[in-house]
Amino acid sequence: MTPVLAPFPEMLPLAEKLAPLMGAGLAPVGWHHFPDGESLVTLDADVAGRDVALLCTLRDPDRHALPLRFAAETARDLGAVSVGLIAPYLGYMRQDRRFAPGQAVSAPLFAAFLEESFDWLVTADPHLHRIPSLDRLFTIPARRVVTAPLLAEWIAAHVDDPVLLGPDSESQQWVAGVAARVGCPYEVLRKHRSGDRSVEISVPDNPALRTGTPVILDDIASSGRTLVRAIERLSEAGASAPVCVVIHAVFAGQAHADILAAGAREIVTTDSIPHESNAIGLAPLLACAAQDAMTELTFQPLEAVNLNPNTGLKDCDQ
Amino acid sequence: MTPVLAPFPEMLPLAEKLAPLMGAGLAPVGWHHFPDGESLVTLDADVAGRDVALLCTLRDPDRHALPLRFAAETARDLGAVSVGLIAPYLGYMRQDRRFAPGQAVSAPLFAAFLEESFDWLVTADPHLHRIPSLDRLFTIPARRVVTAPLLAEWIAAHVDDPVLLGPDSESQQWVAGVAARVGCPYEVLRKHRSGDRSVEISVPDNPALRTGTPVILDDIASSGRTLVRAIERLSEAGASAPVCVVIHAVFAGQAHADILAAGAREIVTTDSIPHESNAIGLAPLLACAAQDAMTELTFQPLEAVNLNPNTGLKDCDQ
Repeated sequence: MTPVLAPFPEMLPLAEKLAPLMGAGLAPVGWHHFPDGESLVTLDADVAGRDVALLCTLRDPDRHALPLRFAAETARDLGAVSVGLIAPYLGYMRQDRRFAPGQAVSAPLFAAFLEESFDWLVTADPHLHRIPSLDRLFTIPARRVVTAPLLAEWIAAHVDDPVLLGPDSESQQWVAGVAARVGCPYEVLRKHRSGDRSVEISVPDNPALRTGTPVILDDIASSGRTLVRAIERLSEAGASAPVCVVIHAVFAGQAHADILAAGAREIVTTDSIPHESNAIGLAPLLACAAQDAMTELTFQPLEAVNLNPNTGLKDCDQ
Repeated sequence: MTPVLAPFPEMLPLAEKLAPLMGAGLAPVGWHHFPDGESLVTLDADVAGRDVALLCTLRDPDRHALPLRFAAETARDLGAVSVGLIAPYLGYMRQDRRFAPGQAVSAPLFAAFLEESFDWLVTADPHLHRIPSLDRLFTIPARRVVTAPLLAEWIAAHVDDPVLLGPDSESQQWVAGVAARVGCPYEVLRKHRSGDRSVEISVPDNPALRTGTPVILDDIASSGRTLVRAIERLSEAGASAPVCVVIHAVFAGQAHADILAAGAREIVTTDSIPHESNAIGLAPLLACAAQDAMTELTFQPLEAVNLNPNTGLKDCDQ
């Protein structure tokens, strides 16, 4: 039977692209907010006997967690045979251990919370610091969409003489991969963080930065401090106004305006989180990954498969 | 070993009264908010081998659910032998069935969510519309603190010639019970609700309302519309300015100011939700109920016990 794609309200624009690619019917989740902070979640659709994929991005995960649980359980209650989650931005992937006594280790706890409700998961480039793979966190089929080829495609098509800049030393391999696809030079910034909003950056001395167009890559822009400082240092070093290419448009508070005010030529993001800066569409990759995850669910246990090195996915029709 | 009471930040004032009554150590939960809407929860205390009681009131439950889960799992991770929840206000107790197609039935779903993290639960007068008892929702030991005796005690001590008014026909038995304890007359208002914030009220014609002091009782004041309309109708009927006695100070937005502006003489609440109107302290009853729930946990299975008809609890030392 046709699967059902059930987006949370803010995800409707992405869902309208995603549903036809998944061959799925579209059934928006209703989310009514009561004055006292409670939610009424509604999934008014015929899901009996169908596979259901909820689409909910997990920026602001605390606010979404319980309504997401309610939507998943309601789909099951209404007869869905499986319920998966497409969360283009996953959230809570930073705290993978206890950095100070008594801290909640939220990455595995959040994963466990999701596993209680969902049969499979698809996300795009999660912010996994020390956890090399989603399989370390999830026992359900979990698929990671790799955005590097899309970022490279956008940069190659829109930026003259790009010079890529990774946000920190940890990003070196990722930025090198994007640069290789674009066929351009790259560097990484040195980053010193102190607290949530305070960060210092130093820019490497590369002559290409003074002749080409700097393109700062980052997987997440949250407070925006990293990008603001990097733009300021590039300006001091005599570089031209940089383009910022960010996977996840988290943008807390005034972050987006702050980055533009600091002198960014342009800020470009994927549509993993709805934002005016979205320019790189993930729908084809998400559809492919969802199909893959649903298939694994149907045909467990899995035989060994070869993953496409560009997408992290098994090759599949889009 | 001494149990540990771990309050969420806003509950520290109640916890300071509650901990000595429980014979418990106090270990405040840290709750840091990241700019992107994620939480860092910390329980920096020696809980190994101890019973832990988290204290968190569940107004705004969506925002609290995940941090609460994180705190509970961290307590277990740090070696707590049991983890209970004292939620003086429980939240999500209204939607106990599907009123329209596709609605999430949040009351049992929220109960199931809490049961995954907690070994026992204590709350004060939950807003159970059609569910007669917490035991219908919870399989863990769940204790309901009955506030009627405390409301009656406050009214008897502070109001001359009180005439109690219940908010709707469903409240009749509850209001009659409070009135019997005070030794005063009572009536119930007739309520017609249309939507979250719109409600119409009619006041019964009782001569006592024109000579005595009307005392409007309600278990929850959320939008405040019920109380505002009731105050307006009482004024039109020639009654003097009413006192409002409310169990749970939910007060969405400007509700509290609206009720005062409508002409309430005074608004009094229990401390189940921290608010400037709190005047009736629940600490002794909550301590008693927590001790009872922890005891049930230790000595399962339970023999049949006689509950105190005033408190809904087994009699215990305070």
